[in-house]
Amino acid sequence: MPVVNDPKAFLTSLFDAAVSAANPARTLAGFLPEAPKGKTVIVGAGKGSAQMAQAFERLWDGPLTGYVVTRYGFAVPCERIEIAEAAHPVPDQAGFEAAQRILSEVQGLNEDDLLVALISGGGSALLPCPPDGLTLEDEIAVNSALLACGAPISAMNTVRKHVSGIKGGRLAAAAYPAKVVSLLVSDIPGDHPQFIASGPTVPDAATREDALRIIRQYRIDLPKSVMAHISSSAADAPHPDDPAFANVEHHIVASAAKSLESAAEMARQSGVEPVILSDAIEGESREAARTQGAMAREILHKNRPFPKPVVMLSGGETTVTIKGKGKGGPNTEFLLSLAMEVSSESGIHALSADTDGIDGSEDNAGGFINGETIARMHEAGLDPATVLANNDAWTAFNQIGELFVPGPTGTNVNDFRAVLIL
Amino acid sequence: MPVVNDPKAFLTSLFDAAVSAANPARTLAGFLPEAPKGKTVIVGAGKGSAQMAQAFERLWDGPLTGYVVTRYGFAVPCERIEIAEAAHPVPDQAGFEAAQRILSEVQGLNEDDLLVALISGGGSALLPCPPDGLTLEDEIAVNSALLACGAPISAMNTVRKHVSGIKGGRLAAAAYPAKVVSLLVSDIPGDHPQFIASGPTVPDAATREDALRIIRQYRIDLPKSVMAHISSSAADAPHPDDPAFANVEHHIVASAAKSLESAAEMARQSGVEPVILSDAIEGESREAARTQGAMAREILHKNRPFPKPVVMLSGGETTVTIKGKGKGGPNTEFLLSLAMEVSSESGIHALSADTDGIDGSEDNAGGFINGETIARMHEAGLDPATVLANNDAWTAFNQIGELFVPGPTGTNVNDFRAVLIL
Repeated sequence: MPVVNDPKAFLTSLFDAAVSAANPARTLAGFLPEAPKGKTVIVGAGKGSAQMAQAFERLWDGPLTGYVVTRYGFAVPCERIEIAEAAHPVPDQAGFEAAQRILSEVQGLNEDDLLVALISGGGSALLPCPPDGLTLEDEIAVNSALLACGAPISAMNTVRKHVSGIKGGRLAAAAYPAKVVSLLVSDIPGDHPQFIASGPTVPDAATREDALRIIRQYRIDLPKSVMAHISSSAADAPHPDDPAFANVEHHIVASAAKSLESAAEMARQSGVEPVILSDAIEGESREAARTQGAMAREILHKNRPFPKPVVMLSGGETTVTIKGKGKGGPNTEFLLSLAMEVSSESGIHALSADTDGIDGSEDNAGGFINGETIARMHEAGLDPATVLANNDAWTAFNQIGELFVPGPTGTNVNDFRAVLIL
Repeated sequence: MPVVNDPKAFLTSLFDAAVSAANPARTLAGFLPEAPKGKTVIVGAGKGSAQMAQAFERLWDGPLTGYVVTRYGFAVPCERIEIAEAAHPVPDQAGFEAAQRILSEVQGLNEDDLLVALISGGGSALLPCPPDGLTLEDEIAVNSALLACGAPISAMNTVRKHVSGIKGGRLAAAAYPAKVVSLLVSDIPGDHPQFIASGPTVPDAATREDALRIIRQYRIDLPKSVMAHISSSAADAPHPDDPAFANVEHHIVASAAKSLESAAEMARQSGVEPVILSDAIEGESREAARTQGAMAREILHKNRPFPKPVVMLSGGETTVTIKGKGKGGPNTEFLLSLAMEVSSESGIHALSADTDGIDGSEDNAGGFINGETIARMHEAGLDPATVLANNDAWTAFNQIGELFVPGPTGTNVNDFRAVLIL
């Protein structure tokens, strides 16, 4: 009796567990604040924030008003919370107006009122809010320079929060003295709340001296007007010890780590020991697959570094440097490269899929591979190396019937990969 | 009292253990055959085979004659065994002549004689031996087509051994009825003897029908003369059950796996649990580092997939796609990318180095990094992202004094990486 009778069904059950753990409709219920004496106001920003808004308003018994901004095309129908759309990853005027609107929503709240902030990945770009004297173009320039400088996200965030009227805890400070509850879907390695969407409700202790040091250290070339701003006390962000934050709390309601842990629990229940490699694997998709393929072979043939049967789980977001003209996304490209690494090996099966249900431009979330995948592609008249060179993994997986198409999931905690070694 | 007082000294001790386990002067002693009644003839081919010859003739008490071919520049002084040099990776006339000479050395041996074959990585290219009716150019064309087709090494080898007068066990068959002992330094994932240097003394069961199927499957475009040869019974390689192989044995005397296991034992003795990720990690160096960096952070912050303190060991050969004009090799480039992944993390230390002692074009084997490496590069006026884009990792490690320069080691089992998480 094999440990796993149907590897594809097993891997799919892990994906389902991962997605379910990240579904706002399921997870928000555990984090609902107490109803306030006064008003309940909902704001939010991020790629997953419209789904969060929809889930929140269905779960919330009392009255509420609200306004949430998400990426173009990411809106979902809400009855009580207004949903706006703006540009990501390069901010636009719609985002600027959304930030102004959100600040105006939280003005004048009192200590009996409740502000709920629904924050998810992408919220930083969706809430451009240049401080007095700076323009939207200045903030776009700051963002471009940061993305190009190679600094870690903590350093980028320290600069961003000193060139903003909403980031670095300023939104929460603006809502003072209302109670502020932030519910966060994390797309950030490590899930530090102050880094998710540049922490509009979460202060950190970094100062503008820190920002200036980072600018020097990474030789970040910023507009003169921006440098003048950061050099002045007007740029000071509120400190975590500021009384404005005494009544502020935040909760990670979904994250890659939580989803991986949920998938791990599902695997364990099926009798397969899970290992979580990382919730934050980044880099070129096809290359990430080479290391995981080498590890899978080591496990298969030498029972190390993990004894089999085992399923290696990982999250994060790998990328594809597009050189060809084919169809595909990071997950199918990861899988094609992995299939080449484990070609002809029996006992290795894998799924890789975007937890939002869409990998790239087509309607699949990802796909499946095993040791026979490459032979089946050859039989179908495909040359896997050529397919990979042309970034055409979707076409190949489509042709051999190994796409994974669960449909949009309504949430996003980046990619989910499961490599099973029997 | 910390587990590891001096991370660089600890990591260096692991490298030394890995190299020592691959040193022919040390390892061959355990594999010396019994002295024969008749003659002892030594032949060999590969990048490490001159060192093997030197070690062998120092260890061997009785009389011997011998002839070994290595890569241009890889000869070492031998007193009794003649050392020739030829081209690698594209074969040349010198290699062709070496193959003819080796075949002539083994002609006429009788059952009282002993043939010792000293085989190491690169031996396939160093022993071009087109069968009757084909030319050196034909064999070069076969090799180029195979390297470009994306087939796994087992498939490439099946084709190669049907277009050769020496590979696929034919050298051992030519020495019949002498006793044949092959001593192998493996650079092949999995250490299958028949794949090391295309197995001149090791037959496998694949037939020319298999070769033709592979040629069709991978759409390998070969010269007509080659196709005519493979289609004829003249291409048949000797079968493993052939009586010519009854008196043939082979031993892996060094391999990445053995070296990693030796480093693991050294770590364990120092009180740090080792894990071997794989002896065969391939792909782009900087990208391999991203996955290992993500895993190192997962271990540091979440104590999974391995509890710390732990040292992750891996072998194999990563590559650098050169786009810039700087200095460096796969190991320093791996390290620079890893340093960026773990920047500002305390408790992560790594060494990466080529076991032959030379990483790329300079005199270093590799280098060291930890969580402060990137900050130190910035302090030295270097921008790590620019350095990486320019493939100039050597310059950066040189400037901050973190090169690792043990000198040439006299052996080669590919790269050695150790990532310590405390």
